[in-house]
Amino acid sequence: MKQSQLFTKTKKETPKDETAKSAQLLLRAGFVHKELAGVYSFLPLGLRVMNRIVGIIREEINALGGVELEMSSLQDPNIWKTTDRWSDAAIDVWFKTKLKSDAEVGLALTHEDPMTNMLRDYVSSYRDLPRFIYQFKTKYRNELRAKSGLLRTREFLMKDLYSFTTTKEGLETFYEKAATTYATIFKRVGIGDRTYRTFASGGSFSKFSDEFQTLCPAGEDTIYLAKDKSMAINKEVFNDEVLGMFKRSKDEFEEQRGIEVGNIFKLGTRYSEPLGLMFTDEQGKQQPVIMGSYGIGIGRLLATIVEMFADDKGLVWPAAVAPFDVHVVELNPKKDAAISTEANNLVRQLETSGKEVLHDDRDVSAGEKFADSDLIGIPVRMVVSERTMKAGAPETKNRTEA
Amino acid sequence: MKQSQLFTKTKKETPKDETAKSAQLLLRAGFVHKELAGVYSFLPLGLRVMNRIVGIIREEINALGGVELEMSSLQDPNIWKTTDRWSDAAIDVWFKTKLKSDAEVGLALTHEDPMTNMLRDYVSSYRDLPRFIYQFKTKYRNELRAKSGLLRTREFLMKDLYSFTTTKEGLETFYEKAATTYATIFKRVGIGDRTYRTFASGGSFSKFSDEFQTLCPAGEDTIYLAKDKSMAINKEVFNDEVLGMFKRSKDEFEEQRGIEVGNIFKLGTRYSEPLGLMFTDEQGKQQPVIMGSYGIGIGRLLATIVEMFADDKGLVWPAAVAPFDVHVVELNPKKDAAISTEANNLVRQLETSGKEVLHDDRDVSAGEKFADSDLIGIPVRMVVSERTMKAGAPETKNRTEA
Repeated sequence: MKQSQLFTKTKKETPKDETAKSAQLLLRAGFVHKELAGVYSFLPLGLRVMNRIVGIIREEINALGGVELEMSSLQDPNIWKTTDRWSDAAIDVWFKTKLKSDAEVGLALTHEDPMTNMLRDYVSSYRDLPRFIYQFKTKYRNELRAKSGLLRTREFLMKDLYSFTTTKEGLETFYEKAATTYATIFKRVGIGDRTYRTFASGGSFSKFSDEFQTLCPAGEDTIYLAKDKSMAINKEVFNDEVLGMFKRSKDEFEEQRGIEVGNIFKLGTRYSEPLGLMFTDEQGKQQPVIMGSYGIGIGRLLATIVEMFADDKGLVWPAAVAPFDVHVVELNPKKDAAISTEANNLVRQLETSGKEVLHDDRDVSAGEKFADSDLIGIPVRMVVSERTMKAGAPETKNRTEA
Repeated sequence: MKQSQLFTKTKKETPKDETAKSAQLLLRAGFVHKELAGVYSFLPLGLRVMNRIVGIIREEINALGGVELEMSSLQDPNIWKTTDRWSDAAIDVWFKTKLKSDAEVGLALTHEDPMTNMLRDYVSSYRDLPRFIYQFKTKYRNELRAKSGLLRTREFLMKDLYSFTTTKEGLETFYEKAATTYATIFKRVGIGDRTYRTFASGGSFSKFSDEFQTLCPAGEDTIYLAKDKSMAINKEVFNDEVLGMFKRSKDEFEEQRGIEVGNIFKLGTRYSEPLGLMFTDEQGKQQPVIMGSYGIGIGRLLATIVEMFADDKGLVWPAAVAPFDVHVVELNPKKDAAISTEANNLVRQLETSGKEVLHDDRDVSAGEKFADSDLIGIPVRMVVSERTMKAGAPETKNRTEA
């Protein structure tokens, strides 16, 4: 893609109301646009990163046996009343609106309830199970304060996966496989070595759950990481009961800040019982389906990657999720046709070999081009200029080199 | 994909409250699930068709010079108040909700206003123009009645493209190119020969617009098509003024029902002026940017394709948008390993040659398999059975063959 076709521009100023480093840099580099507190649009560069993250997650969830669908955001209150989750007392982040008939509808903040309800149409026997169903779908959450930039937003794309099994053992087995898949996903997007499976409370879903926490000073969560890195526990449940369960003592842990980049829950029959998602077992007996749910917020993961790798010059993208693989920077102040041809040939050659290329063909100074290139953070920069033409090869530099 | 992994099943009954043939068939075949009147979830087969339609449109809009982004659904009222579109008197299909602070927010029903507002950050000079920006993004519309199934929904994915040019001539040129691209898109998804560019009113956007109407008895619109097919006019503007503009007379036309599968508008400065999207021209003078907008509703297009081609046995997908290319139906009541191996080999061979395959490996009767296969409507069916093993080749049949 030619940079002259990219309508965004980098900005020098940092928005005053954004305190998170990731949001500041993503706004300055033209990856996102702020619509409201906690609400962002994804501009072309930001959307490209999102799509690469989505692509990695889709591959891994498909390999885990997931089947993809896409549910609606507008939600029937009756389903949520049946599971006791419609009231603001039960869930305090609902966005609700009304049809012309004055009937209320909700905006999905998660999809356990409608997913369970829908599956009733398709599950009646143990032969119909297990099922692993997922989607990438926008969630809406009416957060009281949204001040961590893209780390906590009111509208965000989530990968949510749901497991439906006949037994608790089936759930346990899939849950552990999903945890392994999560570790693979976080490794592939570049944050594996800072991300820990963390024992946590189950919130409104279950007594306990597992979170995936990425160590980061910007994190909203406090976790306790074993000094030998063998396990981590969220502060919410860092108590004698839990330490006892794991036969560990307090002084083996140290406090850390973390960003929750994923979470997995054993739901059991919390949703299947009230909504009547039953199956006939091999003995002909009616049983409620055993469920689990598995989430990853895409925007938060993107912002976490920024927090991890950005330096004082700007964004630094791991190769697997970068908006482009190579940034070809053409320095051509005299508009020499030979230099343009050389740059275009290099771009074509890279694209033919399967690389995605951003080609800075703009008529701006070398200093501005380099500063923008550093801010945008594409992993490899290749410069084509009068000097490199004489040298016979473009100058190549990795974004992580000084 | 193995059909045993697909959690959906076909249904025999037709939902009573669905009168549109397309919705009935899509529900029966397990492509969609109804959440509320006018609100559908897309199940795996339906999502696959959506994705293929999206892929075709993306290719064509990229070729037209479009750059993709994704804006938020939650909307700042201030932007829409500036363009006089926040009140229910101005736009009667708003869904509105509230933040915890009690401040109102809207759910985007279209994106002219926030797109214009956002672009102010990136356009200041004629050198920054033209720009062609698009997205695939859910729209929410609070329709009073939603009773045409997927032809008119309260939540739907739309491809919306916006053009930003310095001159009216620039708009005209792009508008005609976009119209040509639209014709190409409708041809590629299979409905080209029934789809007509139709002169229409501009609604809340402009005096006139162009719609793309697909002739279909299920259509909500009435259009007048010239008997020689040279032009079409929407009933709303089929009057002496418009006939005079085109130097045509009433009796050259005949009435038809149509589904509006796309529309394009010349917006001029309707949004750029109030929102202050200005550029400095070559003479140093401030001018408002000239805009156009170009929409295609993906779900409605999918339903239109169903209306066009479905027969009394079920769905019939054109090859370009089918959920799978080939339906391999394994008939193996005795669970003969040789037949399974043959079917698996055929699937592998087809997939290696780039085909997407649904493999009916289920343990159900031949009659049920054929009925389901007809209902799902994959273009090519290949049967592997004891008989075809003896014959030495699978039986191949196109869905459109009797």
